[in-house]
Amino acid sequence: MSDRVFDVDPYAITTTRLADDRMRLIESMTSTGNAHMGMRGNFEEGYSGDTHRGTYIAGVWFPDKTRVGWWKNGYPEYFGKVINATNIIAVDIEIDGEKVDLFTGTHDDFRLRLDLRNGLLERSFVYATASARVHLEFARFLSIETPELLLQRVRVTVLDGAPHVRLTPRLDGDVHNLDANYGEQFWSEASRGMAPVPHLSLRTIPNPFGTPQFTVTAGMTAAAAGLEPGRAIDAPLQVGEVFAGALAAGGAAELVKTTAVVTTRDIHQAQHVEAVARLLTASASRSFEEHLAAHTALWEQRWARAQVVIEGDDEAQQGIQFNLFQLFSTYYGEDERLNIGPKGFTGEKYGGATYWDTEAYLVPLYLALASPDVTHALLRYRHRQLPQAGHNARQQGLAGALYPMVTFNGIECHNEWEITFEEIHRNGAMAHAIYLYTRYTGDRSYLEGDGLEVLVEISRFWADRVHFSRRAGAYMIHGVTGPNEYENNVNNNWYTNYLAAWVLAYTSDTLDDLPAERAAELGVSDDERTQWRAITENMYLPVDEAMRVNVQHDTFLDKDLRSVDTIPADQRPLNQNWSWDRILRSCFIKQADVLQGMYLFEEDFSTDELRRNFEFYEPMTVHESSLSASIHAIVAAAIGKQDKAIELYRRTARLDLDNYNNDTEDGLHITSMSGAWLSIVQGFAGMRATDAGLAFAPFCPADWTAYSFTVGYRDRVLAVRVAADRVEFTLAGGEPLPITVFGEPRTVDGTLSVEIPAAG
Amino acid sequence: MSDRVFDVDPYAITTTRLADDRMRLIESMTSTGNAHMGMRGNFEEGYSGDTHRGTYIAGVWFPDKTRVGWWKNGYPEYFGKVINATNIIAVDIEIDGEKVDLFTGTHDDFRLRLDLRNGLLERSFVYATASARVHLEFARFLSIETPELLLQRVRVTVLDGAPHVRLTPRLDGDVHNLDANYGEQFWSEASRGMAPVPHLSLRTIPNPFGTPQFTVTAGMTAAAAGLEPGRAIDAPLQVGEVFAGALAAGGAAELVKTTAVVTTRDIHQAQHVEAVARLLTASASRSFEEHLAAHTALWEQRWARAQVVIEGDDEAQQGIQFNLFQLFSTYYGEDERLNIGPKGFTGEKYGGATYWDTEAYLVPLYLALASPDVTHALLRYRHRQLPQAGHNARQQGLAGALYPMVTFNGIECHNEWEITFEEIHRNGAMAHAIYLYTRYTGDRSYLEGDGLEVLVEISRFWADRVHFSRRAGAYMIHGVTGPNEYENNVNNNWYTNYLAAWVLAYTSDTLDDLPAERAAELGVSDDERTQWRAITENMYLPVDEAMRVNVQHDTFLDKDLRSVDTIPADQRPLNQNWSWDRILRSCFIKQADVLQGMYLFEEDFSTDELRRNFEFYEPMTVHESSLSASIHAIVAAAIGKQDKAIELYRRTARLDLDNYNNDTEDGLHITSMSGAWLSIVQGFAGMRATDAGLAFAPFCPADWTAYSFTVGYRDRVLAVRVAADRVEFTLAGGEPLPITVFGEPRTVDGTLSVEIPAAG
Repeated sequence: MSDRVFDVDPYAITTTRLADDRMRLIESMTSTGNAHMGMRGNFEEGYSGDTHRGTYIAGVWFPDKTRVGWWKNGYPEYFGKVINATNIIAVDIEIDGEKVDLFTGTHDDFRLRLDLRNGLLERSFVYATASARVHLEFARFLSIETPELLLQRVRVTVLDGAPHVRLTPRLDGDVHNLDANYGEQFWSEASRGMAPVPHLSLRTIPNPFGTPQFTVTAGMTAAAAGLEPGRAIDAPLQVGEVFAGALAAGGAAELVKTTAVVTTRDIHQAQHVEAVARLLTASASRSFEEHLAAHTALWEQRWARAQVVIEGDDEAQQGIQFNLFQLFSTYYGEDERLNIGPKGFTGEKYGGATYWDTEAYLVPLYLALASPDVTHALLRYRHRQLPQAGHNARQQGLAGALYPMVTFNGIECHNEWEITFEEIHRNGAMAHAIYLYTRYTGDRSYLEGDGLEVLVEISRFWADRVHFSRRAGAYMIHGVTGPNEYENNVNNNWYTNYLAAWVLAYTSDTLDDLPAERAAELGVSDDERTQWRAITENMYLPVDEAMRVNVQHDTFLDKDLRSVDTIPADQRPLNQNWSWDRILRSCFIKQADVLQGMYLFEEDFSTDELRRNFEFYEPMTVHESSLSASIHAIVAAAIGKQDKAIELYRRTARLDLDNYNNDTEDGLHITSMSGAWLSIVQGFAGMRATDAGLAFAPFCPADWTAYSFTVGYRDRVLAVRVAADRVEFTLAGGEPLPITVFGEPRTVDGTLSVEIPAAG
Repeated sequence: MSDRVFDVDPYAITTTRLADDRMRLIESMTSTGNAHMGMRGNFEEGYSGDTHRGTYIAGVWFPDKTRVGWWKNGYPEYFGKVINATNIIAVDIEIDGEKVDLFTGTHDDFRLRLDLRNGLLERSFVYATASARVHLEFARFLSIETPELLLQRVRVTVLDGAPHVRLTPRLDGDVHNLDANYGEQFWSEASRGMAPVPHLSLRTIPNPFGTPQFTVTAGMTAAAAGLEPGRAIDAPLQVGEVFAGALAAGGAAELVKTTAVVTTRDIHQAQHVEAVARLLTASASRSFEEHLAAHTALWEQRWARAQVVIEGDDEAQQGIQFNLFQLFSTYYGEDERLNIGPKGFTGEKYGGATYWDTEAYLVPLYLALASPDVTHALLRYRHRQLPQAGHNARQQGLAGALYPMVTFNGIECHNEWEITFEEIHRNGAMAHAIYLYTRYTGDRSYLEGDGLEVLVEISRFWADRVHFSRRAGAYMIHGVTGPNEYENNVNNNWYTNYLAAWVLAYTSDTLDDLPAERAAELGVSDDERTQWRAITENMYLPVDEAMRVNVQHDTFLDKDLRSVDTIPADQRPLNQNWSWDRILRSCFIKQADVLQGMYLFEEDFSTDELRRNFEFYEPMTVHESSLSASIHAIVAAAIGKQDKAIELYRRTARLDLDNYNNDTEDGLHITSMSGAWLSIVQGFAGMRATDAGLAFAPFCPADWTAYSFTVGYRDRVLAVRVAADRVEFTLAGGEPLPITVFGEPRTVDGTLSVEIPAAG
């Protein structure tokens, strides 16, 4: 199943193979970003073979029309999509008049390397024309020191001949989205010019939906040692410079191109040219190498608090390093208006928008690896969008707030009804993230303040969305899609019902703990509170008494139940081989569903219950969501299935590296990048944030010598190292930290070493 | 709820009110067609207010791209749509340089009339400019004698002043579809010219799906008495002629424009110009009035065998006349490659393609009102598309044949998964139409020949589409949409399961009646036949034992069950006022579902069963499908609920006339036009085609003096007249006909008169 194009290297993505038919995969894997912008690992000089050229700017999007005869009331008006922006990496190269192109040309000694510590992307090869051979070396990175900047270096060294070399660094605005039906373009040129620096402004075309237009301006400077400046390029959607000259055998030339990108999200359009010029002027005081050193130093600070080290398994190390690197390249909490898109800056397919993945899978990681402010920013992002969530609920004729499945601005903007107004469990994840934050930090101020406003509106939604079944004498939730998106429009999805009941209880409990005025302030009536308790207490939860398992939804057990190992290997992944009809009707599960709920509310269940449900559902689970394997790994570890946990960890950690789901060519699975970390920390190390503080129950996978990681917790930083027989906790400073290890209360003050009991 | 724009007139659509805000509705209602082509009731001179200009050519369509991020395996590749074709009615009119426009200009004495016997559309009004007043009169019809021809006449009579009058008859190819996302055009000009007649050829743009491109060529001739020819129009997408001159007070001018339209469906593109010229030359030998007389005579022949007369109720008469007129304008069986689109030539919304409506609602009408050849052609249409139906099944990974929900060429081309591969009950309707034809005609040759090939492949589909539920010990069908499209993706829809089991039994029975070689010829194995019987005998059918009703689908009874009268009037129709989410979750039923099945298989159920199910479901039914009221009217009549039957008849008969569903502006509900006829003949007259021949159990609605209709049956034509106390059967000729009246066997030979017992 795996599809390994890159070498195993603990801290880099490297290859010496240029596979024409795998270019999109290679481009995805070598994507880089700095939270402000990012791009796929496209080639500077262009590539005439199959390629997906993509540059994306954080927060810049377009509302695409999608009415193709199917629109009904309550459907979103538009499909929001991230849009492919100006190609800023372009550097055309001609050797004796021949355009360098790795698809058509003769080349040798190809090397590609993405450094997973600092995001430096390097590439080199020997290129031969009829008259000459040259060695070409490329390096580029997106600065995390000055996120508007892209820095590039291109070196040409002559091996044979005395070729005429021509380098054309440029900005190219002639870009399209992959998914445009009729090649429609979402940009038009707003302005361009050559002074004070070559610059190009693109503006998104007008839209009928009242969402903002964006202008993105890129400006560049370039300098080439060893070549002479030629006539500049200044044409529609194109600006650039030209450097050319004859090089002697053994001679060399070096081009440094610096590009600055600003948008109307931050700077008024009229100031754009001035802004990019200022950024470029400031950057000119340092060389490419000096910029790289400053940028790398900042990355080192990030690793100091987040590095995971796996001793004795380079594949595993590469997996976790790749994931954390890509995650931090996408989001590091600097811009509160942003959230974390499922593909980051690496592709278009999921619209680059905000999904529930943030709350469900990323909050636990950012709580542990970054300042609580980052999570606080993510929570406030949703609070700020409460009015839009109200709008989404009203679109369905419902009270309260419905957070969107996909959004750029809080308004639902996906285009599948079975997702947009049926996959409503996401609304519970918004509430649960508040709970996670409060429990982890011990700080109730967000919960009792803005958080409660969010909880109340989500509760109102659930209270209106349930109905009372007279036949069953219970509240039900019909017409939903659970986390298992391989079923749509089911009734009484256990996970959704459980989560909805929990939200109503959590909101009620929070209100009960506060003075009555707080409820009055929020306009919550006694009748509402009574109703919320009634729903909590009378929520229908499908359970099979004979098997003693929670049932995924009402008629799940009527299916032809069978395990995944009955599917022929050549029919996997199902979503690429089976019709949607067959997938929907089959028993096979895309990702944790009942188990997702039991993971979130683990304390509500005995280990036996957890085991019974795991053993019933996991064999039917194909893990074709990037969000699946990690949750299963954690649950497997919790019920003592260490081998299963390790198997599932490998899948999540190397999902993209080994292209498990055969879709990495579309972009990386950014929001599941936390899965490997969760599998190690919550799975192998058994870490839980409980009311009593952090708890651990670690084991070390047999193939590893040891692993270590660091978590921040209530103003302290705790380092954990787990070897086969022993776990060591080290507190870098601060007050002594009470923790629980294998169920026993302990205190860490300096270093605490605890023996790991042999597995039963 | 009703919305009556037109006067009540038994044989015409007339109005003297030009309501600016109802133009689309008016255009729909005055649509005309002749099976070859058709158009909405647009104004010749143009109209600058809100309008939907539409001309449609039978069998000419385009596969539109619809991939907007949602495509999954098994989804159709394209969305087939009827495309708006050349505007052939255009005649611009200027009075003293002012363009006549009823939206902006001063006018009076407006009259509009569509003759429901022959399709002549007439319009007249007095138009005033600053300098003159003129009377303008328009007449046009699409010939059923020569279906390529449109004939038009425009008269100008000067009332005041001595205006300069300019008439510009032209062909206008600058047309768009209403539903294009980005205004994309589906046509490009293939050629145009002025000799031998002004002509314009449009060709559909290329498509990536391999479906044929079409060229449509229109040519015109025009002659104007009282005006002089001016400079012709010959510009991109436009050709035409100009006639102008000064008219004295009391003076008049008359323009006759004849247009011929041919397509590459019939004639090679290279011969188009010659073909239209030949048609126009031939037509020139007769005047407009002579053409009209010949055309009207052919319509009279149609009415002689299909006329329904309702004595004493002009509204009811107008309803049935309008319906039969529109139906015959859409399809009269001449072209075997065609079928009957839900909107005929009156709009774009349902893609103008073939739906299951044909088999379910139109076959019974055409069997009775036209030669059996017409139904035979409709059956052969499906047999010819058996390979494509196999393709559709294979797209879902299934065996056998899946007839499409929507198609132009047999390949599924709609774009909602919940319809395309879930509303599979349609596959049963294909089989049932064979059964209806065989039973009505007594001719088993189609059934045992081509029909059996269709039945076997449909049976193979069902046998693969069911699954065996070990828990229930029965076969089930999960993941379907029943006829009630206000629910999607349900399990064990009673109608679908019952119909599927019936198909398997009918196919098995048919095979059993034939020599074993026939099964061998068709490659049907004994194992297959055993399996089909097993499924028939063990099909799960949801039934509620307490209420003794058939249950619409597995969890229907868990809903918040309530009757339609609990919905506030301002929330109807639901599909325009409620979100799709709310509609899906509610108990409200769009159209007959369980009752559709009990209607089809009435003989399987007692009257008590029928009554219990009617009384349970009808109160929850909103009849927001044009296909609903008629089936309910028939069932209501069968269980003695005459008042309910009459109420539902009115709704179906005047659905468009009174715009019940508030969507007639999009076009007429052509395929439900049979509903009024079915309600009268199967409902009020209680006609059934049984194995023993035709049976009747008539009553006459209290508000009517009497009603009469004619049916063809096995080479005879039977006229039926039903008054309050007596039904009279008259055989026009042929062998005496045994029939059943009120359960008693009788014979019609000449005239038979039977007393109607007083209602109990």
